[in-house]
Amino acid sequence: MSRHLNVAMGQLGPIQRADSRTAVVKRLCTMMREAKSLGAQIIVYPELALTTFFPRWYIDDVQELHSFYETSMPNIATQPLFDLARQLEIGFYLGYAELAREADGLHRYNTAILVNTRGEIVDKYRKVHLPGHSEHEPWRRFQHLEKRYFEPGPGFHVRRAFGGVMGMALCNDRRWAETYRVLALQGCEMVFIGYNTPVHNAPAPQHDDLSLFHNQLSLQAGAYQNGMWAVGVAKAGLEEGVDSIGGSCIVAPSGEVVARCITKDDEVQLARCDLDWCAVYKRTTFNFDLHRQPHAYGLITEKKGETLAADGTQWGVDR
Amino acid sequence: MSRHLNVAMGQLGPIQRADSRTAVVKRLCTMMREAKSLGAQIIVYPELALTTFFPRWYIDDVQELHSFYETSMPNIATQPLFDLARQLEIGFYLGYAELAREADGLHRYNTAILVNTRGEIVDKYRKVHLPGHSEHEPWRRFQHLEKRYFEPGPGFHVRRAFGGVMGMALCNDRRWAETYRVLALQGCEMVFIGYNTPVHNAPAPQHDDLSLFHNQLSLQAGAYQNGMWAVGVAKAGLEEGVDSIGGSCIVAPSGEVVARCITKDDEVQLARCDLDWCAVYKRTTFNFDLHRQPHAYGLITEKKGETLAADGTQWGVDR
Repeated sequence: MSRHLNVAMGQLGPIQRADSRTAVVKRLCTMMREAKSLGAQIIVYPELALTTFFPRWYIDDVQELHSFYETSMPNIATQPLFDLARQLEIGFYLGYAELAREADGLHRYNTAILVNTRGEIVDKYRKVHLPGHSEHEPWRRFQHLEKRYFEPGPGFHVRRAFGGVMGMALCNDRRWAETYRVLALQGCEMVFIGYNTPVHNAPAPQHDDLSLFHNQLSLQAGAYQNGMWAVGVAKAGLEEGVDSIGGSCIVAPSGEVVARCITKDDEVQLARCDLDWCAVYKRTTFNFDLHRQPHAYGLITEKKGETLAADGTQWGVDR
Repeated sequence: MSRHLNVAMGQLGPIQRADSRTAVVKRLCTMMREAKSLGAQIIVYPELALTTFFPRWYIDDVQELHSFYETSMPNIATQPLFDLARQLEIGFYLGYAELAREADGLHRYNTAILVNTRGEIVDKYRKVHLPGHSEHEPWRRFQHLEKRYFEPGPGFHVRRAFGGVMGMALCNDRRWAETYRVLALQGCEMVFIGYNTPVHNAPAPQHDDLSLFHNQLSLQAGAYQNGMWAVGVAKAGLEEGVDSIGGSCIVAPSGEVVARCITKDDEVQLARCDLDWCAVYKRTTFNFDLHRQPHAYGLITEKKGETLAADGTQWGVDR
């Protein structure tokens, strides 16, 4: 038994602030054609793939801020990408900033969509784990205001598509083991994860050198420990003076990296992924029904932060 | 600020079935002296460190089975280890099979204890994630009957000891992200994990070649994603015809391996671990209070196994 899915990564190089959506969509279309020529059935683009990574600036003016969001999808700028997908019969995953007019007013999300080979949106995901901070912090070399510009989405879900059970996540979600587990508990066989990860992390510059290692470690562990494929795709390179990691890769349910981008520019790479390979793990070492022990996991949902240690003081304090 | 703890791994080579506890304790004592000479404040021994790994056999006779368990700790065989610890002023972590007479009868656990520098047991942990199977499966080259010979422990807890917040786990626990997270939610700064891991996994021989990789991947991801030190220590080598991995290592909160055993025999290696290094991660990327999103984690405690996908069929079935 085998269910092969040919998955392309459409890694993006930098998008400068002055670059128009039209110019970006042209780059996405170029990569889509390349992916198709390699036999890809789906191409995975990064998080916030239509504009520069605007949370690096404190933007007070709402109109200026909202110029980075999409109010509908597809829209005039992105329609060519949907048209090309339908024409080439290739699916895609795309991240963008979403401005949603809902019953109770405007909401802003860091969003990804899954589009089928007929150019139809079949699923939408709103980022759960927003990193960074919510107030202007002038001491930083650059801001990371995702907590200001977005609200967290409701959770993780799966969708039957492309011959398997697909999940979506975004960027910082990949560092949290809960992301993969909640998806796997719903049968997820492949998770798509676009990201923008600056090399420099202002609060902890001690681990700037490890950014690529941490990216890959998280994707590998998430894939292995849940018997699923993980596809991580970067927006990489020097964008408005801020350097971001590349390191896009496709990880098998074994935890092995099977395809990788090596530049920090627009780059397409592909892997032939057998979705049935998940079962080798899901039915043995990670057969949840046999081996998970939820009676011991209570704190994971009961608590957000650390509890106090037995003697009433917290780690790192008063010792 | 720094709180250094010098941690030794006391990796064991094989223990054959005919080897007496007295002989094994002698080996443990030899390694304890060596660890002390390197400046260690604690030495970490493997899981089930006093006997051969008996779950590889189906043992019908209860008396024979129970000969592998300890009914008290310390006992005559292990007293010399406790005496030496007190004399050298060094602590230790030790795994063994525990036969506990409790109010409602006899119970069997796969247990680890933490002993302080005065030779006193300060904490006990009973393994939560028991791997393997519970019935005799003659088709296997060897059995893995942990589910038959032990019952799962109640959960994960921490203990303030050795100048920090310490946690314990055993073997298969290290593959489950929940282990590290539940410990970290209680402020854990260092987790000790003894293991016995056969190279060959009968239900999934496809990944025998990856056993060492999976061991290290799990320890590294658990350490990094929770800002804690992880100390994994093997019983290694060819024991009664079954080859087990070594690969004992100490992993920093950065996910980097800082010390490693390279043989499959009795081997002592040491790392100087700064417990304050945890804060670099616990206060930034993995500041749970700021960044965790328990509203999205419900399934982790609600469910043991997979739920059905949206259309009512499960992964890998009917596709």
